Amino acid sequence: MADSATLPVSVGRYLIHRLRQLGLGHVFGIPGDYVLGFMRQLEESPLQLVGTTNELCAGYAADAYARVTGLGALCVTYAVGGLSAANAVACAYAEKSPLVVISGAPGVRERRKRSQVHHMVGAHDAQRRAFEPITAAAVTIEDPLTAFREIDRALATCLARKQPVYIELPRDRVDMEGQAGHVPESGSPASDPDELAEAVGETASMLAAARAPIIIAGIEVHRFGLTGALMSFAERHGIPVCSTLLGKSVVSEKHPLYAGTYVGALSRAELVEFVEGSDCVLSLGAPITDTDTGIFTTRLSPERTVHATSQTVRIRHHAFEEVRLDDFLAGLAVQSVPVFHRPLPPKDNPLEQPWMPRAGAPLTTGRLFHKVNSVLSKGLSVVADPGDAMFGSIDLSVHEGADFLATAFYATLGWAVPAAIGAQVARGKVRPLVLVGDGAFQMTGTELSTAVRLGLDPIVVVLNNRGYLTERFILEGKFNDIHNWNYHQMPALLGGGLGVLAGTEDEFCKALDHAIATPGQFHLIEARLEKMDASPALRRLGERLAAEAKG
Amino acid sequence: MADSATLPVSVGRYLIHRLRQLGLGHVFGIPGDYVLGFMRQLEESPLQLVGTTNELCAGYAADAYARVTGLGALCVTYAVGGLSAANAVACAYAEKSPLVVISGAPGVRERRKRSQVHHMVGAHDAQRRAFEPITAAAVTIEDPLTAFREIDRALATCLARKQPVYIELPRDRVDMEGQAGHVPESGSPASDPDELAEAVGETASMLAAARAPIIIAGIEVHRFGLTGALMSFAERHGIPVCSTLLGKSVVSEKHPLYAGTYVGALSRAELVEFVEGSDCVLSLGAPITDTDTGIFTTRLSPERTVHATSQTVRIRHHAFEEVRLDDFLAGLAVQSVPVFHRPLPPKDNPLEQPWMPRAGAPLTTGRLFHKVNSVLSKGLSVVADPGDAMFGSIDLSVHEGADFLATAFYATLGWAVPAAIGAQVARGKVRPLVLVGDGAFQMTGTELSTAVRLGLDPIVVVLNNRGYLTERFILEGKFNDIHNWNYHQMPALLGGGLGVLAGTEDEFCKALDHAIATPGQFHLIEARLEKMDASPALRRLGERLAAEAKG
Repeated sequence: MADSATLPVSVGRYLIHRLRQLGLGHVFGIPGDYVLGFMRQLEESPLQLVGTTNELCAGYAADAYARVTGLGALCVTYAVGGLSAANAVACAYAEKSPLVVISGAPGVRERRKRSQVHHMVGAHDAQRRAFEPITAAAVTIEDPLTAFREIDRALATCLARKQPVYIELPRDRVDMEGQAGHVPESGSPASDPDELAEAVGETASMLAAARAPIIIAGIEVHRFGLTGALMSFAERHGIPVCSTLLGKSVVSEKHPLYAGTYVGALSRAELVEFVEGSDCVLSLGAPITDTDTGIFTTRLSPERTVHATSQTVRIRHHAFEEVRLDDFLAGLAVQSVPVFHRPLPPKDNPLEQPWMPRAGAPLTTGRLFHKVNSVLSKGLSVVADPGDAMFGSIDLSVHEGADFLATAFYATLGWAVPAAIGAQVARGKVRPLVLVGDGAFQMTGTELSTAVRLGLDPIVVVLNNRGYLTERFILEGKFNDIHNWNYHQMPALLGGGLGVLAGTEDEFCKALDHAIATPGQFHLIEARLEKMDASPALRRLGERLAAEAKG
Repeated sequence: MADSATLPVSVGRYLIHRLRQLGLGHVFGIPGDYVLGFMRQLEESPLQLVGTTNELCAGYAADAYARVTGLGALCVTYAVGGLSAANAVACAYAEKSPLVVISGAPGVRERRKRSQVHHMVGAHDAQRRAFEPITAAAVTIEDPLTAFREIDRALATCLARKQPVYIELPRDRVDMEGQAGHVPESGSPASDPDELAEAVGETASMLAAARAPIIIAGIEVHRFGLTGALMSFAERHGIPVCSTLLGKSVVSEKHPLYAGTYVGALSRAELVEFVEGSDCVLSLGAPITDTDTGIFTTRLSPERTVHATSQTVRIRHHAFEEVRLDDFLAGLAVQSVPVFHRPLPPKDNPLEQPWMPRAGAPLTTGRLFHKVNSVLSKGLSVVADPGDAMFGSIDLSVHEGADFLATAFYATLGWAVPAAIGAQVARGKVRPLVLVGDGAFQMTGTELSTAVRLGLDPIVVVLNNRGYLTERFILEGKFNDIHNWNYHQMPALLGGGLGVLAGTEDEFCKALDHAIATPGQFHLIEARLEKMDASPALRRLGERLAAEAKG
């Protein structure tokens, strides 16, 4: 931490300084007059400002960056900018992505003097109020005397809760001096030692009495940086680990203890049996959601379950409210727990069978995922958009931790392409392989523009079935059909990249192999699929969702 | 109004019935599982559902549709849908566009039973709370017994305030029966008769004592359907009329009493002198904003001004709070007011000079607008995106009322292309001519997809200067530059339309004439301009905004 005597004195520069201190390297955003002064400061700082085509895409990119690096930032102008990114911020909130939203705003002097300035939505605080329900903290920096403390508090909340915070910077505050001699605050609430000891003790007793325990690793394990701690615990005691869908790739899927992605009835039958046959389930960092439970089809008796998240540790039918997830894991690590030798279920993942193209055979979703699985390797991450691009990915075998990115819970269409930009800005050496439906691609696909500008080289597979496929399985109607594009023509518009149309297995195989072999530019493969072709997982899910919709 | 005995009984069908009753013909939106049941009802109704590429574009289209027809509607799914459109709704709020936002949502039963279902942002009411600051009313239909009344109230608020309202439909309420025998409520608050009489009397006295009055017509004149009343008053008394920028085309610019678009120091000098030299200014339906006042450069003494809006009637230094704009105009109409014979300022609008292309001469912004003005005619509306596309339009001579559409106050980039779709869905016979900068076009330009699908034929002129031009005039930085696209290649991607690149005057002339001559498909003309080329109005505005930013 910098000596307080050397802290930058202006509000804007202090914010930049603190973000740098927390390890941030890039900020995503779009300029606008109320934020230009701060953008100038960004440009003069070591932080890199990454422009995108619009604010929603900037938000998605910053969200993905936050998921990969542990902190992301979005910088936009007032109202027209911030409100355009609201959905990306809500996504980060729902899926616990630590994103700092910085919005320019009319100056405090302007707010006092005159009632209506451009971009205003009735009242001056409208944007901040709109962000309150979708952020963990929303502040407007009005008084330079308290500015540094407010910035500290917002950033601490972002990191403690792994959720977005909103910082509104009136443009006449950016260059004002904050409190001299300010010492940055940090730290987050500690566990209650008695609650912690009791929760850890009970868990250890349950494990000691168990014969076939299993660990379910959820997204928070990654968000709170606990993958290493969790895996050494699992290794020391020989406990198999599976992940949730939102938590897919939280642990490496090539690890010998990795059993699979458990999504209730959407998973393969042998995995369901393995997990639900366990006599002690340690669910770590996995909030209970409809998608992660395969629409509430997981069958895990509370009597034999410890369910620990960043909010509570729940054992059987009681809860501990003041136990941190990291303390809980650290506590378990020093307990006396047996070593288990439970064999994993047979890994007869059909996607792991060798794949050869059948010349001229029309491409199907199943075969597409099979081929995709065959090319996955270190240095390639999967970014899946909601819909079959994601459900079909359940059984993909991802190599490294954090190499699968998807909004498996918030499920916002159009996330994947901009997210891939953010992910590759964060980790240039890891190339994103994007799986995205045609409906979703129409929402944000032109963000590949930024790949061309920055020289990024994602591989984008557009699953083109001319409409919103998931919804067709729930309730069919004309509204699920969309206008067909020549997606593979995108490079002509953007002046970069390579586009290919693939309607058969051999065309797809050739295109994907070529994309892998020739990095340095984006590749877009338009995969033409039958209108109702779908992965088995999506068929099962669509039926569940349709039943749910009927109540 | 339908006999209450025949009212549809289910909540969803009642909402559709009321929207039809209010004259609505189309609903813009994107499906999602929580709204599919209502979409099915829409599909079975006489309302036409118009799909777009994403929710923000649907929102912009519905906003423009509302501006043109007097009511618009947007139908989206929960959170991922609604929050993606938040900026369009805020735009409608800021510029008084009556837009009904209908959002699907998890069922009330689901809300009670389980905590986390997909698309949720922490709490079930997060989306409604986020919409509260950007709508005139935000309701969730939970109880079928009060559902019809809540729908009535929301719709009445939308129409009375000409601002968006938000109606959240939990999916298990859509098919539920509402209260039998319900009689739809309507009506909005009346004027206070004493306040009205006094305000009208004072205004008539000021006019009676005046020698050179002028009327400034603002956007609310159009929104509240008062153009006819205003123009017959002006005609009867020979009072010249000018419009604001946001109100441009509220009155026909070909009318003999029309003096010009008055935007303070941004207007032509002779118009400024004419307006500011008036001894009685009747400002009607024109809220005071920074853009409409040319960044507060209008010089209108309160001593000789009547400023009537939908909120208040302000005369000299006092205000009437309970006077409706329509009542005020109707009251004035029956007062004894003299007939004036003030000559209009010379209409030496440089854009009205004949235009001939100079072969091979590089295209400039000034020459582009001159050519555009020369092709304007009945049956062609101008839809201008913020930036120079809008400021350069100030002196365009628009033929019919309501034929100029722009977010002149909220100023949200990327509005124009989707808005043109909405406007042409509303009025198929009026062809939109879209003026849009390259930065804005990158945000939403692929919405031309919907033009292809529906057979619409907007003419889109992309002013390509490779960046955010307005901001360059305020504060220059790398962040104002964007990646260059081959905009004219858009038809190859979308599988329809015609694209042309124009770098010289003759190329632009030929392309625009061809577009006019060959309707039936969209035409996109990419106009290559110098990086810092700008209309004189933008130069003046940029300087004012830069001064404002410095405080």
